[in-house]
Amino acid sequence: MATKKTGKLIAASLGPGDPGLITREAWAVLNSHCQWLYPVKKTGAESFALDIVKRAGLDVPEDALALAFPMTHDIAILSKYWLEAAETVIEILKSGRDAVFLVEGDASTYSTFGHLARTVKALDETLETRVIAGVTSFAAAASCVNKPLTEADDTMAVIPAGYGVKVVERMLQDFDTLVLMKVKPIMEQLLDLLEQKQLLQSSYFIERAGTPDEKIVTDLQTLRHTRPHYLSLLVIHNPHREHGEIIRGCGKKK
Amino acid sequence: MATKKTGKLIAASLGPGDPGLITREAWAVLNSHCQWLYPVKKTGAESFALDIVKRAGLDVPEDALALAFPMTHDIAILSKYWLEAAETVIEILKSGRDAVFLVEGDASTYSTFGHLARTVKALDETLETRVIAGVTSFAAAASCVNKPLTEADDTMAVIPAGYGVKVVERMLQDFDTLVLMKVKPIMEQLLDLLEQKQLLQSSYFIERAGTPDEKIVTDLQTLRHTRPHYLSLLVIHNPHREHGEIIRGCGKKK
Repeated sequence: MATKKTGKLIAASLGPGDPGLITREAWAVLNSHCQWLYPVKKTGAESFALDIVKRAGLDVPEDALALAFPMTHDIAILSKYWLEAAETVIEILKSGRDAVFLVEGDASTYSTFGHLARTVKALDETLETRVIAGVTSFAAAASCVNKPLTEADDTMAVIPAGYGVKVVERMLQDFDTLVLMKVKPIMEQLLDLLEQKQLLQSSYFIERAGTPDEKIVTDLQTLRHTRPHYLSLLVIHNPHREHGEIIRGCGKKK
Repeated sequence: MATKKTGKLIAASLGPGDPGLITREAWAVLNSHCQWLYPVKKTGAESFALDIVKRAGLDVPEDALALAFPMTHDIAILSKYWLEAAETVIEILKSGRDAVFLVEGDASTYSTFGHLARTVKALDETLETRVIAGVTSFAAAASCVNKPLTEADDTMAVIPAGYGVKVVERMLQDFDTLVLMKVKPIMEQLLDLLEQKQLLQSSYFIERAGTPDEKIVTDLQTLRHTRPHYLSLLVIHNPHREHGEIIRGCGKKK
């Protein structure tokens, strides 16, 4: 007996804002007549991810669906929304249609998609989910300022800035490049640290890379007493770091 | 008096191997009749970057040029090749034509492009260089195993494994995710460390992601006494890490 085909849930990573950074595969899926799903902070709000594809010149299908994921860290609240979104997804997949979830940046890097995919799988483990990788905000930021993130033997750390300046300071011992996400809460203390460590010159700030509202700041002192956007990051290059020895080549067997 | 137009040097990041991960912008530049340049390890050798666009179905222009960058860490030797490559680039740009340099992965992340661009600029600071950001090998790796690299408050470090197992061990205190590049020289010691820390289950190895030779290993013990490919990486997820406190929201002014 033929069983009805089940759709799969696909995350299309769109890159951080420049529609030129959408991959060919994400583009193909967006144009494949599958069900579009896009995240919003609350019902009726604008979707940053949807805005990227609009700026790419794609027409939003009439049946495209917004899924609400509120801006909170309260797991109980989030779980309720993930569950609701997962139930919507499952209904679509069971109807035999693929669903594409629009993701800003890369779906494997600080994205909501992992939670959604896990919730779908928890409700029905037979359903298939898939990620199309994309360009991260920090890779795009580096291209905007024309300065590599890492070269040769460099080390890089990507951390939410909220762990605090003491953590950032400690990491300067081990890392040539620090990417700080969500810098808003500790911006002033970070600027103090960078000034003290003489790293203001080699660091930069970027907000909404690749969008019409892009803001790149290389003179970091001008950021004092300002309020950065949520989608902003700080890249610290640390030229003073002393590299340890490095083992090259094939190495010896133990 | 009208001056002759000068071309610019563009890095087209192609992602780590899957031709579907080429961005729309890189694709447009590849199809814009500019001069293709692609890296090879030595004259006549295969180019990994060129192979990606071939698999994407693009015809390689007859005048596409290979630029040789030998596999060495000797700066004196490399500088000679960068200089030679830069002179070739400058000749093209001065003729008024744009040149596109094909880059595997992302041109800002462990790529030769930075050196080439700096050498071009050092010879003629009026020349323009530009990077089109791309998908990194670790973002692609995460999508292949369907497991996010980072979520919520996670921290991630990307380091050449050659700094040694002691460095890797120390970083387990601060990082939820470790991406180890060039694991070949210390593979056995890494496996010992992961076994000791009970992290074998939550880590995976990936070689040439997205290519016909892709190899994904989740049972890491099978890697003992093998010789990983140069283009391989190890992703360690560290579920035992205790997160410190995190500062959220807008923070207080000092």
